[in-house]
Amino acid sequence: MATGTLPSVVSRYKVAIITLFLSVYIDVFDCQQFVIPFKSPSDCSGDEFFDISSLSCVSCGSNQLRSTTGLSCICKTGYQTLITDKTSITCQQCPTDKPAVITDGFGCVRCPGSISDEGKCQCPPGNILVERDTNGNLLDEAMCEICNGNTPGLTVPNYSGDKCERCQDSFINSSCVCNPPNVLAGGLCFPSGSLSTNVNPSVNYAQLKFSVQSAWFVKNLYSSSAACLVFSNLTACQALGNMCVMSMHSFSSVSTDACGLFNTIFRSRAALSSTQDISYWRVNLPWLYYGDEPGLAGRVLQTDPVPIKFSFRGRKKNTDIRLLAAVYNVRGEFLRWEQVGAGNLQLCPGTTSKQSAAFSFGTAYQESCDLSVADLLDAHPEPLFYDVFLDLGGGENRKLLPLPTLVYNQQYNGRLINQESMKNWYLSRRMFVVDTLSGREKSTSSLPKVIRVASSVKISFQLVPRTQDGRVFPPLMTVTYRDVQITDINAQTVTTTFAVEYEMDQNEARIKTDTAIGVMAGVALIYSLLKTVSWKRRIASPLIDAETLLKFLIFYAGDLANVFFAVTVGTGLYWLIFYKAQQFVSVLLPLPAQEEQFVTYVGCAFALKAVQFLHKLFMQVSIDVFFIDWERPRCKANRTVQAAGEPKRDPSPVSIWRTYFVANEWNEIQTIRKISPTFQIMAVLFFLEVLGFSNLALRDPWPILQRSSQEYTPSYSIMLRYGLSSTLWLCIGFLQVIFFTVFHEHFIEDKIRQFVDLCSISNISVLLLSHRCFGYYIHGRSVHGHADTNMEEMNNNLNRESESLCGQRGLLPNSDTQTFQVSLTNRLRLQYDRIREHIGRRNGPSRLMDTSSANQFEQRARGYQTMNHFLGSVIDHAHPDMDYIVRDKLMFERVIGMEFLEPSEKSIFYNDEAHTFSDVLFYGNEATLLIFDTLFFCVVDLASQSFVLAAVLTCVQQIIFRLIRNTLGRKNLVNKTLVDERFLI
Amino acid sequence: MATGTLPSVVSRYKVAIITLFLSVYIDVFDCQQFVIPFKSPSDCSGDEFFDISSLSCVSCGSNQLRSTTGLSCICKTGYQTLITDKTSITCQQCPTDKPAVITDGFGCVRCPGSISDEGKCQCPPGNILVERDTNGNLLDEAMCEICNGNTPGLTVPNYSGDKCERCQDSFINSSCVCNPPNVLAGGLCFPSGSLSTNVNPSVNYAQLKFSVQSAWFVKNLYSSSAACLVFSNLTACQALGNMCVMSMHSFSSVSTDACGLFNTIFRSRAALSSTQDISYWRVNLPWLYYGDEPGLAGRVLQTDPVPIKFSFRGRKKNTDIRLLAAVYNVRGEFLRWEQVGAGNLQLCPGTTSKQSAAFSFGTAYQESCDLSVADLLDAHPEPLFYDVFLDLGGGENRKLLPLPTLVYNQQYNGRLINQESMKNWYLSRRMFVVDTLSGREKSTSSLPKVIRVASSVKISFQLVPRTQDGRVFPPLMTVTYRDVQITDINAQTVTTTFAVEYEMDQNEARIKTDTAIGVMAGVALIYSLLKTVSWKRRIASPLIDAETLLKFLIFYAGDLANVFFAVTVGTGLYWLIFYKAQQFVSVLLPLPAQEEQFVTYVGCAFALKAVQFLHKLFMQVSIDVFFIDWERPRCKANRTVQAAGEPKRDPSPVSIWRTYFVANEWNEIQTIRKISPTFQIMAVLFFLEVLGFSNLALRDPWPILQRSSQEYTPSYSIMLRYGLSSTLWLCIGFLQVIFFTVFHEHFIEDKIRQFVDLCSISNISVLLLSHRCFGYYIHGRSVHGHADTNMEEMNNNLNRESESLCGQRGLLPNSDTQTFQVSLTNRLRLQYDRIREHIGRRNGPSRLMDTSSANQFEQRARGYQTMNHFLGSVIDHAHPDMDYIVRDKLMFERVIGMEFLEPSEKSIFYNDEAHTFSDVLFYGNEATLLIFDTLFFCVVDLASQSFVLAAVLTCVQQIIFRLIRNTLGRKNLVNKTLVDERFLI
Repeated sequence: MATGTLPSVVSRYKVAIITLFLSVYIDVFDCQQFVIPFKSPSDCSGDEFFDISSLSCVSCGSNQLRSTTGLSCICKTGYQTLITDKTSITCQQCPTDKPAVITDGFGCVRCPGSISDEGKCQCPPGNILVERDTNGNLLDEAMCEICNGNTPGLTVPNYSGDKCERCQDSFINSSCVCNPPNVLAGGLCFPSGSLSTNVNPSVNYAQLKFSVQSAWFVKNLYSSSAACLVFSNLTACQALGNMCVMSMHSFSSVSTDACGLFNTIFRSRAALSSTQDISYWRVNLPWLYYGDEPGLAGRVLQTDPVPIKFSFRGRKKNTDIRLLAAVYNVRGEFLRWEQVGAGNLQLCPGTTSKQSAAFSFGTAYQESCDLSVADLLDAHPEPLFYDVFLDLGGGENRKLLPLPTLVYNQQYNGRLINQESMKNWYLSRRMFVVDTLSGREKSTSSLPKVIRVASSVKISFQLVPRTQDGRVFPPLMTVTYRDVQITDINAQTVTTTFAVEYEMDQNEARIKTDTAIGVMAGVALIYSLLKTVSWKRRIASPLIDAETLLKFLIFYAGDLANVFFAVTVGTGLYWLIFYKAQQFVSVLLPLPAQEEQFVTYVGCAFALKAVQFLHKLFMQVSIDVFFIDWERPRCKANRTVQAAGEPKRDPSPVSIWRTYFVANEWNEIQTIRKISPTFQIMAVLFFLEVLGFSNLALRDPWPILQRSSQEYTPSYSIMLRYGLSSTLWLCIGFLQVIFFTVFHEHFIEDKIRQFVDLCSISNISVLLLSHRCFGYYIHGRSVHGHADTNMEEMNNNLNRESESLCGQRGLLPNSDTQTFQVSLTNRLRLQYDRIREHIGRRNGPSRLMDTSSANQFEQRARGYQTMNHFLGSVIDHAHPDMDYIVRDKLMFERVIGMEFLEPSEKSIFYNDEAHTFSDVLFYGNEATLLIFDTLFFCVVDLASQSFVLAAVLTCVQQIIFRLIRNTLGRKNLVNKTLVDERFLI
Repeated sequence: MATGTLPSVVSRYKVAIITLFLSVYIDVFDCQQFVIPFKSPSDCSGDEFFDISSLSCVSCGSNQLRSTTGLSCICKTGYQTLITDKTSITCQQCPTDKPAVITDGFGCVRCPGSISDEGKCQCPPGNILVERDTNGNLLDEAMCEICNGNTPGLTVPNYSGDKCERCQDSFINSSCVCNPPNVLAGGLCFPSGSLSTNVNPSVNYAQLKFSVQSAWFVKNLYSSSAACLVFSNLTACQALGNMCVMSMHSFSSVSTDACGLFNTIFRSRAALSSTQDISYWRVNLPWLYYGDEPGLAGRVLQTDPVPIKFSFRGRKKNTDIRLLAAVYNVRGEFLRWEQVGAGNLQLCPGTTSKQSAAFSFGTAYQESCDLSVADLLDAHPEPLFYDVFLDLGGGENRKLLPLPTLVYNQQYNGRLINQESMKNWYLSRRMFVVDTLSGREKSTSSLPKVIRVASSVKISFQLVPRTQDGRVFPPLMTVTYRDVQITDINAQTVTTTFAVEYEMDQNEARIKTDTAIGVMAGVALIYSLLKTVSWKRRIASPLIDAETLLKFLIFYAGDLANVFFAVTVGTGLYWLIFYKAQQFVSVLLPLPAQEEQFVTYVGCAFALKAVQFLHKLFMQVSIDVFFIDWERPRCKANRTVQAAGEPKRDPSPVSIWRTYFVANEWNEIQTIRKISPTFQIMAVLFFLEVLGFSNLALRDPWPILQRSSQEYTPSYSIMLRYGLSSTLWLCIGFLQVIFFTVFHEHFIEDKIRQFVDLCSISNISVLLLSHRCFGYYIHGRSVHGHADTNMEEMNNNLNRESESLCGQRGLLPNSDTQTFQVSLTNRLRLQYDRIREHIGRRNGPSRLMDTSSANQFEQRARGYQTMNHFLGSVIDHAHPDMDYIVRDKLMFERVIGMEFLEPSEKSIFYNDEAHTFSDVLFYGNEATLLIFDTLFFCVVDLASQSFVLAAVLTCVQQIIFRLIRNTLGRKNLVNKTLVDERFLI
C-alpha cells in the first residue's frame, strides 16, 4: 500500500490481497467506501476538538476542554497545563494553596484578590496583575498594582491589564481622569462647552420612510465632531465627513445631524485660509460640498474645459481616462490613492479587459448586475469613501481635477434638489459604494437593518461645443444610492449599475437637421405641386376638387418621405462616418434620450413612404391596357364569300394566341424588379451578421468588424444602426441595380426589351393609359406584315430582320423607336371610352344567367374588335379628327415629368427610348420600392433591435406585396383586355 | 459662500461679487480653477507629513520628522514629545543627563547601556528594557533585566523586548536554550537523530526546466517535517503536505523533497490505524495520495455509483452539485469549510448567477479568462489548499465523498503518468489554485521568480451505464498546473479555465448507429439494384457495361445519402428529445470529441446527396421533348389550290404561336417547387434566431427558448444543432409541401395542372422521353378540333367545355386521362431517332455560313413537320407496326418504380393521373431538393456555427442551381423543339 520508489514483489502481493479484501468489503458495504461524515468545528461537543487532519471530532484528554477555536484542547478551569511528551498536553489540578492558574496556563499562583470565572486572578479597575517578577520568575502570590494616573506617571493599565502605559493625550491636564464638567466621549476627554452633546445620531432612510438610531453614529458622531472642532483632529474630521456622506450629504433644518455638524464646523473655519485655493475646501476638513449658489453647477460643469485633449487615433492618440481616488476608511484614516475601476466603484464582477473598457474615452459603458446582499455584507463590512479626481497627467507635476459629484437623491431641507433642473443642483464630493455600517442599530457588529448601496454610478463627459481637438468639460459623477431593508440576506439582491456616458450639445445638430428638413420640404412642396399640375393635365381636368387635393397630399407624402429619408440617412451616415473616423474628438453620439426625435423622423419617413407605395400600387393595378392586333386574316377571298353567307362564322379567323402570349408576358413582367429582393436581403444579412458590420453600430469609436467575446461590448446606437443598415441596404441595392441594368440586361437578358421585341414579332401593339389622357404606347406592328404563321416562316422573318432585309420596326418610317409616351386629345379619349363601355365587364346579377353571360361575352368581343379596329386606324392616321403627331420630349419636360404642350387638336406621341412604360410596373419604380424596403427593414430593426427579424419580415412583406400586385394586376388585365385568366399563368 | 439653511440677501450679494471676481480670475488663469497637484505620502520629503484633509505635503514643526506612515510628524531623535494645545505636538531636546527618549516618546531617561540609532535605550540579547516601575512611574534610569531561562522561570524576552514570557514548549527540558546535539529549526528545538537535516528545499519547475531554492521551503520544510514526525504536530503535518502539493504531488527517487519526506512519514505511520477507515489516510497526516496499485484509478472511478440520484424535473428534481472544500492555509492551519465555487476554484470573475451554473447538473460549463499576473500576486499572496468533497446531503448525518483528483502534470519518478492511460493514473487529493509563494527565492516577501497557477480545473461526471435514475460514478477533478516565469508582472497574463463536464459511455449508441446504417445500407443496396434494373429496361439495353455500373453507383449514392441522412437526423433528434426531456438522468450528451464520427456521417450524407442531386440535374437538362401540334390548316380548299401552284407558299399555315406558348410555359415550370425556398429559409431563420430555438442546442438540460444575458450560456452541441436545424428545416418544408399541395394547388393555382390544361386548350401534345424507351406523354388534343382561332371562338369553346357540351379530353374516348407514362418499343424509338437526326442542330463550322445555315434550318423545320406528323399518326394508331396499348400501372409497379411488361410488340401507355411527368422538373423531385438543401444548411452551419451564414449560403446555392437548371433547361428545349430562344422568356 505504501508508495515507494521500487515497490517490492512482496508488497505487490500484499496489495493484491488487500485489494481482494477491499472488493469483498465493497460488495458487502455497498457505497460505503470513502464516504465520511461531515463535521465542522462547531459540531464538536464541549469535550471534543476538531482534528484538522481527519476532519472529525476527537475527544480531549481528561480534565480538558476544547479551546475557543475548537481546534485544540485546553485545561479546565483550575487546572494547569503540563507538557509531557511534547505531542499532547496533560492537565493537573492546582494545589489548594495556589488555586489560580496564571495567564499563560503553565503554572498556578495565589491571588491577592478574587478569582475570575476562568480561574485567573482578578484585579480591581485601574490596577494591573503581576504574576512574574521582572526577570520572569513566577511569584507565589500574584500582585495587584495600581497605575499612577497623576503626573509624572500619567498611566493607565494597558488592554491586557498586565502593564501600565501612558494615557490618551486629551485627558492630560494633570491626571488621567476626565473629570466633569469635561465630557468623556469615544475614549477622549473634551473640555466642557466646546460642543453641545445634543446630537442626532439617527440616519434617515427616506426611501424606506424610517430612521435608524445608528450604533456607529451613536458611538462616534459626538466624539468625531468634538475632536474635529476642538482638537482639529484630521481623522476625526474625516470621520465626521464620512458620516455626512453616509447620510447622502442630506441635511435638514435640524443642524445636529452629521451634515449639520459638519457645516457648523465648516462655517467656523471660514476665517482660516482655504485648502488648495479652493474656497469650498476648508482647512483640516474634507471637501464635501460645492457652494449652494444657484447656477453654480452650470458654471462648474460648463465653463472651463479640462486641459486634456482626447484623440482616437494617430500619433497623439489619447483615449485613457485615468481616475484616481483618495480612499478613506470609515474611521477617517487615509488608506491610499487608488485607480478607480474594477476594485472599487465597479461592483459588478468582470474580467479586467472588459471592465477597463469603462475608461476608454468614447466607449459608452454600462454594466449592471444583481448582487447578493449576503455577498455584499461579507465583502463590505465597513464602507470605504472615495474622493475621485481626474488625473490630468503631466509627469513630475502631475495634476488632478476633482470630479464634481451629484448625489441624485440628496436632500436639501427636504427637497430632492438634484432631481430638479441643473441650476438648482447642489454638487458635492466624496462617495461610498456600499454602506452596511450605518444601518446597524444595536451594535456595530449586529446585522444591519438597512444597507445603502450606490445602485447607480454614472460618469458623464460633455464635449466642449465646436471643439476640434477633443476638449471636454469637467466630467460629472452622478451617484444614486438605494436603501435596502434587510429581510433575508440570502435571497435578497441589489441591482447596481456602473456607467460612463459621453454627450455633446445636440442642439446645433438638431437645428441643422430641422433646417434641412424645412428647406427640402419646401422644395418637395413645389415638386408636388408640379406633379399635381402635371396630373391634372394628364387627366385633362381643369377643376380643383377634393380629389386634386387628395392627389396633392399623396404626392406630397411621397416627396416628404424622400426628404425625411434623405435627412435621416444623411444624419445616420454623418454620425457613422464622423464618429467612427474622427481623429481628434469633435463629435460624440447622441444619448438614447436624444435620439427620440430621430426615431420620429424615421417613423414619419416610413409612414409617408407607405402611403406613396400603396398609392402607386393602387394606380398600377387600375391602369387601362389594350393590345392592338395588327394581324389581318390571310384567306381574304374565302372570308368574304362566307361572310356574305354566314357572317358570324369566320373560317380562318386571326388567331388570338399571339395576344395571349403577349398578355401572358405582360402579366409576368408586372413584378420583376431591377434588383433581386432575396439576394438583397441575404446580402444585407451577410454583411451585417456574418461579416460583423453590425459591430460598427456599437457605441464606441472603433471601426472594427470582428470583436472577441473577451472584450466589452457596448450597447447599440439607434442612429448608427439606422445609418449603417440603410446605407448598406441602399449601397447593395444600388450595386444590384447597376449590375442588372448595365451587365445583366446587356449580356444576359432584359425583360423589358424582350417584351418590346415580342410585341414586334407578334404583330401586336400595346396601349397603356395610366391617366385619362396620358399613357404609353408600344408599337408592335410586324415589319413582315404577318406574324401568325408557322415555324419556318417565323424563322425566315427573324433571319431577314437580323440581316436588315426588311423595314425598321419604328412607328415612323425608317425609325427604330417603338415606345412612346402619349398625350391623347379629349376627343380621342371620349371615343375610346365609348367603345370601352361595351367591353367593360358587367358585374352584378346578370352574371348568374349563363345564356345572357354568353351573349354578353359576344357583345364584349365585338366591342373588342371595334376597339382593335378603332385604335389601329388611329395609329394609321385613318381618323383625321383624331390624328397625332410624333415629337421628342424636351429635356426639361423629362426632368420635371410634365408635358408643356396640351394635346388640344392632335394627340402627341413623345418618343421614348427609355421604356418609361415600365413606370406602370414594379420595374420602373425601383427607387420607391427600394426606399420602402429600406425603411421597412430599418423600422423593424429599430423596434426589435434584431437584424434577422427585420430581414425575415422584410422578406415576408415583399412576398405579400408581390402577391397582391400580381393578383390585382392580373385581375385588371383580365378586365381590360378580355384575355381569359387561364392564359395568364 | 457658506452653506446655510436660509442664505441671507447679503450673502447672496457676496456670492455674486465673489463669483464675478472668480470669473475674472478664471479668464486670467484659464483652467487653473480647482486643479490640484498630485501628492502621495511617499512624495513628501523627510520633514513634511501628508495632510490627509488637503491631500498635500505640509511641513512638520521644528525638530520634527515624518513618521513611518508619513501621515503625521514625530520628534527627531533625542527629542521628547510634549503636548501643548492638544492639536499639535512640540518637541523638546532631552537633557544631557537623560539623553535617551523612552519608548512611547513622552519622556527622557538615562540608559544603563548603549543608546540605539533611534535614540532609545538598548539592552543586550536575552534582556528586557524597563523604563517605568510597576506602577507606571518613569524611572530616572532605565534598567536592563535578564529573563530567567531556567526552571522555574523558563522565560525569554517577548517580541517588543519589555517583558519576560514563557518560552516555546519544544525547548523545555530544563531551560529555554536549544543545546546541541538538539537541532534548532523554525523556532522549534528538535531532539537529535529524529530526522536527517539533509532536506532538499528546491521546487522543480519542470515546464520551465529549472528549480528554485524556495525561501519558504528553506525556512519550513525541515521544521515542518520534523515537527510532524517528532511532535505529531497537526498543523506541521498539514504544512508539510501543502509543500508536497505545491510540488504538484511529484516525487522522485530522491526522497528528501517535500513529497519524499511526506511519504517517509506516511510509511512510518503504517502501524497506526488509518483515519476514517480509509487506508490512504494516515493518522495526523493529510490525505494526499490514493494508492499506486495499477488500475486503482479505474476501480475508484468506475466501480461504485455515488448515492445521489440526479433528476432534471418533477417532484424529485435534483440538479444541485454541492461541493465542499476543507480549506487550509500554507502554514497548515485549518481555516474553514467552504462551498466550492466563485470564491475559490473559479478564478474568472463573473456574476453569481453565471458562476453557479457550473454546479447545476447537466450544464456543460466552461469559463476561461486571462488574468493579469499583477492581480494574481495581489489577490493571492499565499496559496490556499483545498480538500474537495462532494456533499451527499442527508440532513443530520450529512455525508461527504472525497473527490479523487488527477494532477495532470504530476511526475512519478520522472514520468508524467497521469497523461498516460487510465490504468497508470495515480490519483491524489488536495489542490491549490494560485501559488505565488514557493517561487520566492531570496525571502518570502520578495517578488517570486515563478508562480504556479491551476490553469485548468475540470470536474467530470460519468453516468453509470444503463442507469434509469440518474446515478453517476464519483466525479473526477482534473487539475493542470502551469508554471509562469515572472518577467513583467503588469504585462503578463495567465489563462485559466474552470470546466464541468458530463459524459457517458457512448459505445452502445455508436454500435446502434452503426448497426442501423449497416442494415439500411443493405436495403438501399437492393433498392439501388432494382433502380438499375429498371433503368436498363427503360433504355432497352440488356448489356451490363461500365455505364451500368456507374449508374448503379450513382443510384446507390442517392440511397446511401438517404440512409446517412435518416440516421443522423434520427440521432440528432434522439439526443434533442431524450436529453432535453428526460426526468431522471439516463443519457448525457456526447462530448465534442465523441461527435467526430457523427460529423463524418453528416459529411458523407451531404457528399452523396450532392452526387445524386447533380446527376438528377444533369438528367433533367438532357431529356427529349417534342410538342405535337394537332392543328390542321383551316383553308383547305384555298390551300390545295395554291399548293399545286406554289407548293412552298402556304397561304394559311398553322400558326406556331400555340407551340411557342406551350414551350414558354414548359420553360417556366422547370424550376417551380412544392415549397417556396425563400420562405423556407426565412422561416427557419425566424425560428432559430428570432424565436430562439437555437438555444435548444445548448449543452444543458433546459428546453428554454429565451435566455437572459444574465444567465450562463453553455457552448453548443454539434449534434443538437444538427438535430435541431435539420428537423426544423424538414418540418417547415413538410408543412409547406402540405400547404402547397393541399391548399394552394386546390384553391389558388396548380402550375402543373394549368400546364396540362393549356396543352388541351392549345391543341398541343407533349412527349417527354426521359430514357431512351421511357417517358411521359401529355395528351393535348383539343376537343374542339381547332384551337387556332379568335377570342370569341376560344371563349365559346371554353364555355362549351365547362358546360360539358363536347367530348372529354382524354386520349381514350370518354376518358379524362391526359397524362401517361410511356414505354416505347425499340422500333418506335428507332424511327423517332431517325427523324430526330434531321432536327438535331448541327454544330461546328457550318454555322458560320449564313446561307447554308438558313437552308439547314429549312431542312430542320421539315424534319420538325415530319416528326409532328409521325408522332401524331402514332398516337392516332395510324402505324399498325408501332401501335400502342393503354393500361393501368400495377400498384407494385408504382411503388418500386419499374415496369414489369416489356414493350416488345406494342408500346405501352400507362395511365398517370398523378402527373409523374413532373419527375423531369424540380417539382417532382422535392424530396431530393429538400434533403439537399437541409444538408447544405446543416453542413455550412456545422462548419461555421452560424445559422445566418448557413441561410445566406443556402439561398445563394438555390439561386445558382436554379439559374443553372433554367439556363441549361432552356438550351435543351431550344435544341429539342426548335423553338427560338427569344420566345422562352
